[in-house]
Amino acid sequence: MILRNTVEILDTTLRDGVQGEGIAFSVRDKLAVAEALDELGVSFIEAGNPGSNPKDLEFFRLAPGLRLRNAKLCAFGSTCKSGIAPAEDTRIVSLLEAETEAVVIFGKSWDLHVTEVLRVSLEENIAMIAETVAFFKERGRLVIFDAEHFFDGFAAAGEYALSAVKAALEAGADRIVLCDTNGGAFPCAVAGGVRAVKALTAGGNAAAAKGPGDGENAPLIGIHAHNDSGLAVANAVTAVQEGCAHVQGTLVGFGERCGNTSLASLIPSLELKLKLRCLPEGRLSQISALTRKVAEIANVSISDDMPYVGAHAFSHKAGMHADGILKVRRSFEHIDPAAVGNDRRFLMSEVVGRSAIADRVKRIEPSITKDHPVTIALSGKITNLEAEGWAFEGADASFELMIRRELGLCGTLFRIEAYRVVSEHPTGAAIACSHAWVKVLVGGQSEIAAAEGEGPVNALDGALRRALTRFYPDLRLVRLEDYKVRVIDGKDATAAKVRVLIESTDGRRRWNTVGVSADIIDASRAALVDSIEYKLICDMERRRDGIFP
Amino acid sequence: MILRNTVEILDTTLRDGVQGEGIAFSVRDKLAVAEALDELGVSFIEAGNPGSNPKDLEFFRLAPGLRLRNAKLCAFGSTCKSGIAPAEDTRIVSLLEAETEAVVIFGKSWDLHVTEVLRVSLEENIAMIAETVAFFKERGRLVIFDAEHFFDGFAAAGEYALSAVKAALEAGADRIVLCDTNGGAFPCAVAGGVRAVKALTAGGNAAAAKGPGDGENAPLIGIHAHNDSGLAVANAVTAVQEGCAHVQGTLVGFGERCGNTSLASLIPSLELKLKLRCLPEGRLSQISALTRKVAEIANVSISDDMPYVGAHAFSHKAGMHADGILKVRRSFEHIDPAAVGNDRRFLMSEVVGRSAIADRVKRIEPSITKDHPVTIALSGKITNLEAEGWAFEGADASFELMIRRELGLCGTLFRIEAYRVVSEHPTGAAIACSHAWVKVLVGGQSEIAAAEGEGPVNALDGALRRALTRFYPDLRLVRLEDYKVRVIDGKDATAAKVRVLIESTDGRRRWNTVGVSADIIDASRAALVDSIEYKLICDMERRRDGIFP
Repeated sequence: MILRNTVEILDTTLRDGVQGEGIAFSVRDKLAVAEALDELGVSFIEAGNPGSNPKDLEFFRLAPGLRLRNAKLCAFGSTCKSGIAPAEDTRIVSLLEAETEAVVIFGKSWDLHVTEVLRVSLEENIAMIAETVAFFKERGRLVIFDAEHFFDGFAAAGEYALSAVKAALEAGADRIVLCDTNGGAFPCAVAGGVRAVKALTAGGNAAAAKGPGDGENAPLIGIHAHNDSGLAVANAVTAVQEGCAHVQGTLVGFGERCGNTSLASLIPSLELKLKLRCLPEGRLSQISALTRKVAEIANVSISDDMPYVGAHAFSHKAGMHADGILKVRRSFEHIDPAAVGNDRRFLMSEVVGRSAIADRVKRIEPSITKDHPVTIALSGKITNLEAEGWAFEGADASFELMIRRELGLCGTLFRIEAYRVVSEHPTGAAIACSHAWVKVLVGGQSEIAAAEGEGPVNALDGALRRALTRFYPDLRLVRLEDYKVRVIDGKDATAAKVRVLIESTDGRRRWNTVGVSADIIDASRAALVDSIEYKLICDMERRRDGIFP
Repeated sequence: MILRNTVEILDTTLRDGVQGEGIAFSVRDKLAVAEALDELGVSFIEAGNPGSNPKDLEFFRLAPGLRLRNAKLCAFGSTCKSGIAPAEDTRIVSLLEAETEAVVIFGKSWDLHVTEVLRVSLEENIAMIAETVAFFKERGRLVIFDAEHFFDGFAAAGEYALSAVKAALEAGADRIVLCDTNGGAFPCAVAGGVRAVKALTAGGNAAAAKGPGDGENAPLIGIHAHNDSGLAVANAVTAVQEGCAHVQGTLVGFGERCGNTSLASLIPSLELKLKLRCLPEGRLSQISALTRKVAEIANVSISDDMPYVGAHAFSHKAGMHADGILKVRRSFEHIDPAAVGNDRRFLMSEVVGRSAIADRVKRIEPSITKDHPVTIALSGKITNLEAEGWAFEGADASFELMIRRELGLCGTLFRIEAYRVVSEHPTGAAIACSHAWVKVLVGGQSEIAAAEGEGPVNALDGALRRALTRFYPDLRLVRLEDYKVRVIDGKDATAAKVRVLIESTDGRRRWNTVGVSADIIDASRAALVDSIEYKLICDMERRRDGIFP
């Protein structure tokens, strides 16, 4: 049963997300993440624990400059220490000094943790919860109480877990968030826990004592799940269906151990399928781009098979699926990819049907059909190249060049006659550790150029583009945006094949190319050559069509 | 309600898994995957579609040589074509020729798909299902019927979806598998669908007609879920809780679009939490290793935050969590990592408490405490190096060397005086495209050596080890097992920093080292030097302790 038609979202990328392995943010990064989350339109941003990490205070000092339009910032911290009044507990004072509109206070609700980890009496813990919540309420804060390990506690000693929640409610907490801290709870256990807490808040005992008691002002119940059993999203969905109106998670999903509820996986389900509003109107279509942005700031790659926002989420490889989609969209798609700002793709691979290949060829030469010799030849070529480790799924420009070559539409624009790349230490003269020269041949004329670089690929790239710029001045505009190396078969270690993927831009468009070789320099060369060739061909066609000045 | 205390597992890595982007198997790979799955002990291995992919027939021809001990092989294919008798449909004949004990037949159960995609009448589709199932039953096959798009069909036209299931049941299907082909179903919808089908099988109409009608021989209901809403594991758990006793998925979880139910995420939950047996006794503890093995054959890296089997699944970064675990294991762990063959780790990072660092230092020097200057210095060093892009989480050997250096336990075993690595094209003489020389200094004596290689790193590695082998003959035994390159900040493209991770072995042990630089050659050199130094130090200590001959 759902009580409201909106669900409040609290993103904890900047607090619980940082507990994820490999995640670290500078203060500058944190500000950029907060901006992206506010743009998405979450209700709360939990941004750090000023009591345990003094660096976080610096963030809270600078944060007002962000002028957030949608999100309230929250500082996070534990209940006061045993035997110390909140006003004298330095961590509580730090939390207050963060000067956020809302604070998140976590307290123990599993008796095991109280007696064995915290090592205080059960009564003392209840008092710590009540005092801390009351302390912040008296100072005008919106208080979100996180009942840590609630579901484990509820299973082990239900009455005690509920008494911790009751203490927070009676002290005036505005939100009661049930946490599956260890990530082991099943949806059925989550449903049972939420129902028990709902009986407390709706039963009038605490909520009614609090004020006018109208539904809008009664404390909301929230859910905070972890993914240790692969059930974090399901537990959040279940909690919402049982009446939770506040969900905590991290946009990308990273966090301690197996991560938190991924909000990018959850929000589209809540909005599109349960028709619950989580974000301001019109923001859902930004979720793919903003999830990638946060992942980029965090310096993690989002998993390609991530629901809704992943690169493969609407990729169709099976020929039969591609065929079905072309007949009726929803036959093989659970939602319209545009609703979350993602795209449908038909993958170019040995499994893909020739109809999807023909679909791509037609964009260049409309007369080509599924059974045309060019389509058949391309299908065979893809199979062979994939067997050698090539992958065109992330290299549309290389794939288009292959089609053009097959159609006979590519003249030879340039050839690399020779190159030499040297990395050395120490260097013999005033030169970088890596340097290269490249000799190119363009329409019978040759040119040689040299460059230094940070690393051998950077040097090769510099020398190649310098040599070609004499013939093709537009290449000055080309920059490499991203460079990825994938070792295809780790088993032969440094002699294994590598696949290099390059993303290039000329300031207007971006394109991706690929190269494969046992030699990383040679694989990079192949991807660089494709990138330059693609740019030159596109420019020539645009000039011919009068699009490009 | 659960009817039995065992759940049958069907792994479809070799069929639906191959629909995942970037997944391709050779016949040899397929045989290796089948062996790993049999070792894990799944009940069925769905190994390919001989009707649509003739390469798969070759697999089925070779498969009997595997002598599988636990798993039955299944060939997969669709119902016969409209208007063609099964015996005359070439794809059905191919399926028969695979000569597997079991076959999986998929048929349409969503009216939209029947009329709009397949473009046959609703009655015709029912006839195709019945005829195909009966055809294989008459030929002695165990028939698993996959009701494609069942949940979408059940929502759109419930009676029709159930009539497709009924047709398969009446024709003698042994398993009825309800598929969420588009991956958009919610657990509550799955529960509803399973209950409706259970009413059919338990209602006695089909099942009773089939034979003695005892519970053991009645057709089982199964579930096949996809992860497009992040709910594949939850949908499988729900279906099992509603009475399904057959689950389909892929061990790692890859598959079309966002993937299938990950069996590695599901099986531990079913066995450890619902106490349902899925694998033969004693096999669950192999699941981490075998999941990694299948991922390796598939040439994908398993996500570090994957539930149960991921490298981070039992990693504790927060100082407070590490502290809690050291007091009571289950305070921050939902299961014992050993049950699934995984390990607990305390991460070495800026967030980790000094107690976890001290825990590592103590293994080398037991007298060092949390507040010892060495621990404090290491903590600061880790923070600085991480800021530069280093990551010790996957490089235990480099981390141990850092501790030893801090403790003053590492003498200088060798120094690289100079090196030069050249990659060129075309080559001037009978030499590989990449070649290198390295000059080392060992205890006042220098040595220079050269090597060619496939790629610059391979050449550098060869030359370095050749130069050092004169002084340290044991280095002959060292081989690089894995080599990974991660571009740390793609934004500066070819001039971005790279992190190189190397796994080495001497045939007895494996160790991991790391290097970071803007220059891939220099980053590789750092990781290679650490690898060699670690090997030499360990050997010396073992000799000193009399362990090593």
